[in-house]
Amino acid sequence: MSNMPKWIKEVNGELWLTEDEKENLKLSYRAKKVIHSEQSPYQHVMILDTYDFGPTLVLDGVVQTTSMDGFIYNEMITHIPLLTHPDPKNVLIIGGGDCGAAREVTKYPNVERIDMVEIDQLVVELCKKHLQAVSGNLSDPRVNFIFNDGTQFVKNHENTYDVIIVDSSDPIGPAEQLFSLAFYQDIYRALKPDGLMVCQSQSPIFHMPVLKQTYERIRSLFPITKVYTAVVPTYPGGLWSFTLGSKKHEPIELDKKWDKEAEYVNEGILASCFNLPQFMVKELFQD
Amino acid sequence: MSNMPKWIKEVNGELWLTEDEKENLKLSYRAKKVIHSEQSPYQHVMILDTYDFGPTLVLDGVVQTTSMDGFIYNEMITHIPLLTHPDPKNVLIIGGGDCGAAREVTKYPNVERIDMVEIDQLVVELCKKHLQAVSGNLSDPRVNFIFNDGTQFVKNHENTYDVIIVDSSDPIGPAEQLFSLAFYQDIYRALKPDGLMVCQSQSPIFHMPVLKQTYERIRSLFPITKVYTAVVPTYPGGLWSFTLGSKKHEPIELDKKWDKEAEYVNEGILASCFNLPQFMVKELFQD
Repeated sequence: MSNMPKWIKEVNGELWLTEDEKENLKLSYRAKKVIHSEQSPYQHVMILDTYDFGPTLVLDGVVQTTSMDGFIYNEMITHIPLLTHPDPKNVLIIGGGDCGAAREVTKYPNVERIDMVEIDQLVVELCKKHLQAVSGNLSDPRVNFIFNDGTQFVKNHENTYDVIIVDSSDPIGPAEQLFSLAFYQDIYRALKPDGLMVCQSQSPIFHMPVLKQTYERIRSLFPITKVYTAVVPTYPGGLWSFTLGSKKHEPIELDKKWDKEAEYVNEGILASCFNLPQFMVKELFQD
Repeated sequence: MSNMPKWIKEVNGELWLTEDEKENLKLSYRAKKVIHSEQSPYQHVMILDTYDFGPTLVLDGVVQTTSMDGFIYNEMITHIPLLTHPDPKNVLIIGGGDCGAAREVTKYPNVERIDMVEIDQLVVELCKKHLQAVSGNLSDPRVNFIFNDGTQFVKNHENTYDVIIVDSSDPIGPAEQLFSLAFYQDIYRALKPDGLMVCQSQSPIFHMPVLKQTYERIRSLFPITKVYTAVVPTYPGGLWSFTLGSKKHEPIELDKKWDKEAEYVNEGILASCFNLPQFMVKELFQD
C-alpha cells in the first residue's frame, strides 16, 4: 500500500476509496483490490475493483465510470443526440475514454465514421482491458482513436461532423477547457450546417452554476438549446444533466424512433428526459 | 462528544456523520453542530446541522430528511396519490414524522381530515421545531396527530379513507412491519371502495428485492398497481421508488390537473414519473 494515492486507505483490513471531490460530503467505496494504479502525463488513473459496482475507473481520486452503472451515462449522452439528428453519418466524441459512448454510437448502422479524441491513452487502454462491461469488445472499424487534445482537434476541423459528443470529466484538471465558450465556438464551426452537439453539464444539485453557465454559453451559439437529465447512482446527488445545442433539428418525438437494445433508455425515458424538476426550471429558464 | 452515537465523529476538528447503513458504500456529511441527540423509546433521533443540506433528521444514524432536499420526497409521496383520486376527503398518513407529507396534503382545499399516525412523538416535536423548511408551520386544524403504532391503527379502521400514504423509514427497526403483506391487507380494508394507497418502496439500485416484493404484495391486493420514481440526492443512489395501489382510479393525465406551488413537481414531472428506466421495467414487469 506504500505507493497508493491518498484517496485509498486500508481500514481494519478493508480497502476503501474516499472521494476527495466535495468539501462537505464524502462518498466512500469499499474495494476488493486495486487492479491498476498509475500516474499518466495528465492525471492519476486507477482501476479499482469495488464490491457494489465492480471494476471502476477512478481519475484523480474521483469515480468516473463503474461496471454496474456506467451504461446509464453512456446511453444518455449518445442516444439523445443520435436520435435528434435525422441521419448522423460523421460523429466526433471528445473525451469518453471509458469507450462506452463510442460503443453506443456503433449501434447505429448508418453512422459511417466515429472519431474519438481522448487526451489520455492510458485511460482507453485500461478501460478496454479491465472495464469491458462498459467498453465492450470495441473493435468496430468505424471507430478511429485519436490520442490528442480535444480543444486543438476541433480547432482544426470545419463543417465536418453531424454530431459532436463532449464526454468530459469534471471541469477541473485536464477537462477544464472543455467547458469554455471558445471551445463551444470551435465545436459550432466543426459541425455541419444542420449539426448538433451534446455535453455533460454536471449535477443540478451540486454544480448549478456550472450547468447554468454551460446552458447560457451553448444558448448564445445554437438556436436550439435543451437540457435533459438522467440518474447516475455513483455521481453525487444521483441526478445528472446534459446540454444539447442544435443548429436545426429539434429533439421532438424521440421515442417514436426507438429500436435498440439498452438497459436504461426506452421509449418512456426518451419521452421524459427533457421534463425537468421545477427547481431546475426556475434556475435555468425563469431568471 | 462523549455521549455522541458511534456514527458521529470528530476528525481534525471537523464534525462528520457517516451513515452505517450499507456495508460497502458510505456517505459522510460534514456538520456544523448537533442540534439535538436523544434516544426515544423506538430509535435514536438526531437533528444535525449539516453544511451542504442544512438541518437534517437522522434516525439510528441514517439521514431521513434534509432541509435542502426534503421537499422532493414529500411532494412525490403526496401529490401523485392525491391527484389520482378524483375527490380525496379523508387522508391517512402512516409515519411521516418530519411533517412534510402532511404539509403537502394541506395544499388541497377539498381534503377534510388528515390523520397522521406516527409512532415516535419525539421525531414530530423535533422536526416541528428544528426542521421548519420541511415541516412548515403545520397548524392546519385538519391535521390530527396520533402518536401510535400505524399497524395497530389501520387494523381498527374499515372503509374510512380515500387515500393512505405510508411514509416509512427503511424496513429495519420500527418500520419493518410497514412492508408486510398483513399490513397492506389492513390498509386495503381501511380504504373506501374507490380508495388508493402509496408507499415508499426503497432504492431500485440498492434494494431491488424490497421494491419487487412490495410491488408483488400490493399487486396481489389492488387491481391497479404502479411504480414511480423521483431523485432524492441524499438517498443512496439518488433514484427512489414509490408504489401506488388503487382499487379503482388510474393515475392517468395527472399533469392536466396541476395548479399548486412546488419545488420539484410540475406538469412535466407528473407526466414522466411513471416512465421507468429499462432495467426497472425488466426486473419488475418482464419476469
